[in-house]
Amino acid sequence: MDFEKYLSEKKQLVEEAIGRHLPTGDEDRFSAELCKAIRHSVLAGGKRIRPILTIATTELFGGRVEDALVPACAMEFIHTSSLMIDDLPDMDNADYRRGLLATHKLYGTAVTILAGAALSFYAFEMVSRFQPVSKNGGNPIIPQLIEEMTRTAGLQGLLSGQLADVQSKKFKVNLETLKLISARKTASLITLSVRAGAIIAGASPHDLQRVTDFGKCIGTAFQIADDILDVTGDSKKMGKKKGRDLANRRVNFVSFYGLDKSKEELSSLLAESKSIIEVYGERGRVLNYMADYIISRDF
Amino acid sequence: MDFEKYLSEKKQLVEEAIGRHLPTGDEDRFSAELCKAIRHSVLAGGKRIRPILTIATTELFGGRVEDALVPACAMEFIHTSSLMIDDLPDMDNADYRRGLLATHKLYGTAVTILAGAALSFYAFEMVSRFQPVSKNGGNPIIPQLIEEMTRTAGLQGLLSGQLADVQSKKFKVNLETLKLISARKTASLITLSVRAGAIIAGASPHDLQRVTDFGKCIGTAFQIADDILDVTGDSKKMGKKKGRDLANRRVNFVSFYGLDKSKEELSSLLAESKSIIEVYGERGRVLNYMADYIISRDF
Repeated sequence: MDFEKYLSEKKQLVEEAIGRHLPTGDEDRFSAELCKAIRHSVLAGGKRIRPILTIATTELFGGRVEDALVPACAMEFIHTSSLMIDDLPDMDNADYRRGLLATHKLYGTAVTILAGAALSFYAFEMVSRFQPVSKNGGNPIIPQLIEEMTRTAGLQGLLSGQLADVQSKKFKVNLETLKLISARKTASLITLSVRAGAIIAGASPHDLQRVTDFGKCIGTAFQIADDILDVTGDSKKMGKKKGRDLANRRVNFVSFYGLDKSKEELSSLLAESKSIIEVYGERGRVLNYMADYIISRDF
Repeated sequence: MDFEKYLSEKKQLVEEAIGRHLPTGDEDRFSAELCKAIRHSVLAGGKRIRPILTIATTELFGGRVEDALVPACAMEFIHTSSLMIDDLPDMDNADYRRGLLATHKLYGTAVTILAGAALSFYAFEMVSRFQPVSKNGGNPIIPQLIEEMTRTAGLQGLLSGQLADVQSKKFKVNLETLKLISARKTASLITLSVRAGAIIAGASPHDLQRVTDFGKCIGTAFQIADDILDVTGDSKKMGKKKGRDLANRRVNFVSFYGLDKSKEELSSLLAESKSIIEVYGERGRVLNYMADYIISRDF
């Protein structure tokens, strides 16, 4: 199988769906201004890993790609919403994101706070309106998807993870807190992305559990890869400053484990993630590739 | 009918439901810190007008009060979430709310931004898990409720209304913008509160339209009453500073219409709201009282 081709086709599909689903704010100039900030953030690029994972998992369990597109875009919108909030002056105070000025640098703090919240609300709204074409699952999956999205984006996910991250500059972080930050800020939404795909396809509870375990492994691996990149990476390719964690006196996996042990941990998680989906054989090939892909950075 | 008794019974019911449904953040200290900020804001008091409206409308159309409680609390949580955001330094920069320090003054800006978003997410989450006891409506109403909640809280509601409000200090506001701010920041959630009650009770499209019109009237009336209070009210009773709009150079209905015309407009909206629900006769008595009640302030 030509994975490069698969990836570029799905990315194209996702970009088109994002283009169709992004709010425009035509109603008035205030919605329009929020939407300008939203569009800047969402269209700044990125690998679209989360939506592609949703699509890949839907396909794995025999669901229709068309049914995966709305929830897939919702994953990307929730992700982007959290980046807008994270970059705020009162949070990470980051000037750049994906090589472009951070949203608050272009549109101001007030607009970014409001647009960041609005983008997540819009992701939920989109899914609440979503009518899957196929009948397996159907409407009853909507409350479940929204319950998981709001929980993952909220108190028990991205938002409390971000608080822990912000506060980690102020106190000595132990391994438990470091893992909590990684679980909530990164692994949670990657896990939800594969779960959403499985839910859309009407996967069995066993299958749902399996992709959940897979998502947690690759989500944590993704965070470790990111932390390694912060130390060894090329600022230009990353589109953000190298050594930002160190500059912010923020503990990450590398500063905690050291570089060698971080790389070992990464390999071990990668192997574990692949063993979890081994049971699917050839059908699981795409997720197998995805595991490699999402941790493949320039190091 | 003893309306005072009705009101105090329903308020008691709402306070109990809020107590049961407010998140505690027992999982870890970061969720706990967000929840402390949330609880401070939600438990600071208020008349609980929105949840009582949801309950009253559910009863009007023969629904069960038990089924109204979760959506009713969700209305109050969305409302409180918007107040937390509005008071931020980059927005209204308000030090006090309901006679207590504003959330950001006690817990800081970062916590308040995160907790404010978390509280709305939690409102959606609560409703996504909600299983009405009665079968009229049932599960299919959940996506509809969430769609309306996210839209009202988001781009086409509270958030763009707040942006318009923040920016109204910087440019000359015309009547159209003033009405947009009032519609989005105030009338929209009051309208949703009555709509939610009707949806829960399985009301007909005609009835739903009628309470929507009623909600818009009393929502606008509420805003005008608030603006009158800003000029004539007693700071102590309000729990916030009198003349705050003037101090912020913010245009409101009184600065636009003058005091007399504002009072006229208020009376006319009140009369209109009552005429809309006249068709329900005795059954509509509670909403009739509610219209008087929500604009009854000390002026």
